[in-house]
Amino acid sequence: MDDELQKFIEYREKMNRKILDSGNLDIKRFFGLDSAVYRKGILDEKTKELLGLVASTVLRCNGCIVYHLIQCIKKKVTDEELHEALAIALIVGGSITIPHLRYAFEMLEEIRAKEEGNGSS
Amino acid sequence: MDDELQKFIEYREKMNRKILDSGNLDIKRFFGLDSAVYRKGILDEKTKELLGLVASTVLRCNGCIVYHLIQCIKKKVTDEELHEALAIALIVGGSITIPHLRYAFEMLEEIRAKEEGNGSS
Amino acid sequence: MDDELQKFIEYREKMNRKILDSGNLDIKRFFGLDSAVYRKGILDEKTKELLGLVASTVLRCNGCIVYHLIQCIKKKVTDEELHEALAIALIVGGSITIPHLRYAFEMLEEIRAKEEGNGSS
Amino acid sequence: MDDELQKFIEYREKMNRKILDSGNLDIKRFFGLDSAVYRKGILDEKTKELLGLVASTVLRCNGCIVYHLIQCIKKKVTDEELHEALAIALIVGGSITIPHLRYAFEMLEEIRAKEEGNGSS
Amino acid sequence: MDDELQKFIEYREKMNRKILDSGNLDIKRFFGLDSAVYRKGILDEKTKELLGLVASTVLRCNGCIVYHLIQCIKKKVTDEELHEALAIALIVGGSITIPHLRYAFEMLEEIRAKEEGNGSS
Amino acid sequence: MDDELQKFIEYREKMNRKILDSGNLDIKRFFGLDSAVYRKGILDEKTKELLGLVASTVLRCNGCIVYHLIQCIKKKVTDEELHEALAIALIVGGSITIPHLRYAFEMLEEIRAKEEGNGSS
Repeated sequence: MDDELQKFIEYREKMNRKILDSGNLDIKRFFGLDSAVYRKGILDEKTKELLGLVASTVLRCNGCIVYHLIQCIKKKVTDEELHEALAIALIVGGSITIPHLRYAFEMLEEIRAKEEGNGSS
Repeated sequence: MDDELQKFIEYREKMNRKILDSGNLDIKRFFGLDSAVYRKGILDEKTKELLGLVASTVLRCNGCIVYHLIQCIKKKVTDEELHEALAIALIVGGSITIPHLRYAFEMLEEIRAKEEGNGSS
Repeated sequence: MDDELQKFIEYREKMNRKILDSGNLDIKRFFGLDSAVYRKGILDEKTKELLGLVASTVLRCNGCIVYHLIQCIKKKVTDEELHEALAIALIVGGSITIPHLRYAFEMLEEIRAKEEGNGSS
Repeated sequence: MDDELQKFIEYREKMNRKILDSGNLDIKRFFGLDSAVYRKGILDEKTKELLGLVASTVLRCNGCIVYHLIQCIKKKVTDEELHEALAIALIVGGSITIPHLRYAFEMLEEIRAKEEGNGSS
Repeated sequence: MDDELQKFIEYREKMNRKILDSGNLDIKRFFGLDSAVYRKGILDEKTKELLGLVASTVLRCNGCIVYHLIQCIKKKVTDEELHEALAIALIVGGSITIPHLRYAFEMLEEIRAKEEGNGSS
Repeated sequence: MDDELQKFIEYREKMNRKILDSGNLDIKRFFGLDSAVYRKGILDEKTKELLGLVASTVLRCNGCIVYHLIQCIKKKVTDEELHEALAIALIVGGSITIPHLRYAFEMLEEIRAKEEGNGSS
């Protein structure tokens, strides 16, 4: 399995490790905080990941979009729910987000395909 | 009642009417779509308003933040839920969003005060 | 005449002079370039000012919007043309630009009123 | 013809179809509006496409830049006109837009080459 | 002393306290990190504050600009140094940053005036 | 040597030449200004390049990041200094900048490797 999704996951993991190994404490603390904020609180993890997905889409960051899509799907968010969240991002962010919508739909398809390949659904 | 919140609400209403009365059909259709996208679908209205709030905060738009805060509170979102959503916006959007966090907390207090004044809580 | 429009014009002029008087040559050259780029070329001044207005609106800069509105009106751009340009900005930039659309419509009204007061139409 | 331009066109078409087929009505309505806003009105199509190009460049969206370049060239916009519009985008948006200027010039060359290959000029 | 600068300082302090008192731990940790990152490291505090100022200017956040200006001046950054840093922000961020340049020059003047009034120079 | 870094350098040079050869004077003047602003003034070149790097990172422009990294390294900026500057960009710009942090760390490694290959360290 050597598709774009898999390459992204491996690249992300490898580079995050290098960043954390660089010894800069402020960066390390930020990464810790970035994980903590999506953990279950008063809001459940599913809602939090949808918030992360919409924030990533209006800010037009493909790397962030695919990460939150993966997390959303782990939390059992359905395609219809993802489409509604992306529709909000589109209206808020405008046509300039459309290329990122295309990317989100492409990655969503890849994530679902991989999920099925793993027999996880 | 002549506070900043009230002035914002009246200004917003007055100007939206002028924009819609200008006769530009594309603008009118966009405004319709902007209302439609927050209506109950697979995702409930509360979640949708939280998505709108986080999108508005990372994009750093005070006018949009106060609007979605008002809507969130109409949908019975609690302060703790709002704080968690704003925490995600802060981590995603960085310290550059802090002035908008201050504005959100200020307006939240005003909206709650007005709500109590109306005996609606 | 002590309205918001007039105050903006005076503040802009006063601060621009202070910036240019600060003695930083790179800033000075940039300001010169910023004037030059809107001068008549292959594209006429009216088209260039509309380009400046749309760029300012999608980038959500009120100070830039009012400046280009004033210039557009000097170049005899009509309200209908301005509305069509703003509609494009709205679709490209999304609902996050709506507060700036409200501001544009408000300022447009003030500029037209002032123009009539001056007997210039 | 298997260049980057052709791949972009095919990818764009394929993914837009998937997005529209997803069944989300708000997204569908937005796509309709996004086509409508560039149609001839008081402003002609050429001016509208230039507005779209400048908005795309200051917002730094390569996918949007190449799309509007293609449309501009269909409407007989000349290279000199495109350069003047891009100069405005550069001054408004700053050096951060330069990588997108490089992309615009690269794609412009490819579009012109393809146009000649088709004997359309 | 009831000028805009003083009002900003007091508002900022009051609202930051309310935000920290809200009980959201992730927000609190982010605020701690936001202070830590500007402390002397391999880079001195003066350089770090200039980095904060330029980041704030290209991201066009007045509240952040005035904060970093105050800090820069505490670290004995001269006006000429500030102008050079702002010139970089202007070239990188484009004419859209000019209203924020005006604000920076205005606040700089107020901070210097206050400094003299305090006999601190 | 046919890595991503080398390809970027060659592409950048080739396209910049084409842009400058296009004959648009305003673009040409902007490019001149973009070089001038990083030259030694009251602030030294090292500080100016760090300012350019942080501005590029918070604005999330990979092409600009790699360019300023190359310049920083020419001016003998150390890895620890770069990490501290990037930490500020991360806190100011939020988690949305993390993909660009990954890119910066990747390119930094390539630039250092190339530097050693050239016996320049």
